[in-house]
Amino acid sequence: MSESKTHMIGLLEGIASTRAIRRFTDEPVSDEDLAQILFLATRAPSGSNRQPWRFIVLRDDERSLQAKQLLGEMARRMWEFKRRGDRYDEGSGQRKDSPKSRLARSMDHFAAHFEEAPVVILPCFLPYRESNPMDGASIYPCCQNLLLAARGLGLGGVMTGFQAGVDQELKALLGIPESVVLSACIPLGHPQGSHGPVRRRPLSEFVFEGGWDQTPTWAVDPTGTRHTRAGPPGHRTVIDPK
Amino acid sequence: MSESKTHMIGLLEGIASTRAIRRFTDEPVSDEDLAQILFLATRAPSGSNRQPWRFIVLRDDERSLQAKQLLGEMARRMWEFKRRGDRYDEGSGQRKDSPKSRLARSMDHFAAHFEEAPVVILPCFLPYRESNPMDGASIYPCCQNLLLAARGLGLGGVMTGFQAGVDQELKALLGIPESVVLSACIPLGHPQGSHGPVRRRPLSEFVFEGGWDQTPTWAVDPTGTRHTRAGPPGHRTVIDPK
Repeated sequence: MSESKTHMIGLLEGIASTRAIRRFTDEPVSDEDLAQILFLATRAPSGSNRQPWRFIVLRDDERSLQAKQLLGEMARRMWEFKRRGDRYDEGSGQRKDSPKSRLARSMDHFAAHFEEAPVVILPCFLPYRESNPMDGASIYPCCQNLLLAARGLGLGGVMTGFQAGVDQELKALLGIPESVVLSACIPLGHPQGSHGPVRRRPLSEFVFEGGWDQTPTWAVDPTGTRHTRAGPPGHRTVIDPK
Repeated sequence: MSESKTHMIGLLEGIASTRAIRRFTDEPVSDEDLAQILFLATRAPSGSNRQPWRFIVLRDDERSLQAKQLLGEMARRMWEFKRRGDRYDEGSGQRKDSPKSRLARSMDHFAAHFEEAPVVILPCFLPYRESNPMDGASIYPCCQNLLLAARGLGLGGVMTGFQAGVDQELKALLGIPESVVLSACIPLGHPQGSHGPVRRRPLSEFVFEGGWDQTPTWAVDPTGTRHTRAGPPGHRTVIDPK
């Protein structure tokens, strides 16, 4: 990654085009890149600037390889469960060129090759009070910084929840204190393929002004934005189900 | 904000220098800037790309002003409580030029003038399952994108939890369904003062490789980085207190 290419990416452009990267080349991630990514991750805010985060970096030592394998097995189990539950092989999933079947192929490859990611980072949250719905405000902003910083250095990654399924095993293997919360599992590497625009629902579905469900006229996507339907098939976000 | 200045900020530089902004000029925030900020916020990842977020924008209509006042009163109560609890007027807080007393003055002004922020955004999370520790992974990355995007457009803001203290009042006033989670309260505007480097603890305290407490030699801050002690006085992050 040349210095000039690194610095070419503007802040707004970088935010708009940071994709989930699930396929990596064999190229290792350098110590310098890792240090810079984690430095930038930790420029994020946290409640009272407590910085209640730690990062366990898994690369190629013996314990890291064991931890990656635990996570890889969980990735495969979670993806198999999701593939069936979200009916990835039905409907548009049967057309090879549909976004659904492209995502399914990407997930197949990702789960099958999880252990080959050059780096896996486990962001950890250190609780300082009883669990609170705002705890995430002190750990996930730094995870997003981490992904953006990776993109700025020509790398890429994806936020996953695979650690949640092997929490106890990882704690035992890596000597993590019981009270620590494993908040995410983020594989990182040099992308096969590239970053680019992501797809979301139209902005008008998300933005209200002055009260719930009051859509302002200005809440429009930039010209040329391509949308997606959100979430798994059959998914409806629950608003007061009664 | 000139187009050229906007596009001058690189991704890595932007992440490194996005500060909490708590003082705003009177300049209003344009519809265009708001649309762009919220568009970029929603480029963040969320679990299964569900995009379980909504944003209530408070500006100058009647109900928004009432909501801002509820939040401003809570801001003042929370800051008074914190000022005492965290002993802001003791120790280095008695020296006018200490970081502690500078922060206290900034918070005094922020709380006293909360309602004058040109825009307050309430990011909301729509639950689709029982509350889960990873829920925050689907709302706080987009809050961080929001703050970075604001910075990229010459604006600024700060993540606060003031909404948590007036949750029910805000829901009644703004017609927000009961099941919706108000995840944050983010005032935005044109900064008085400027963005710049933030202070954190040394990177070596945060980063482990291959196991808990194993600090790698490469986990070093860039030359010239200035540090801070984390969190409120007397604060210790709890690791297995026994």
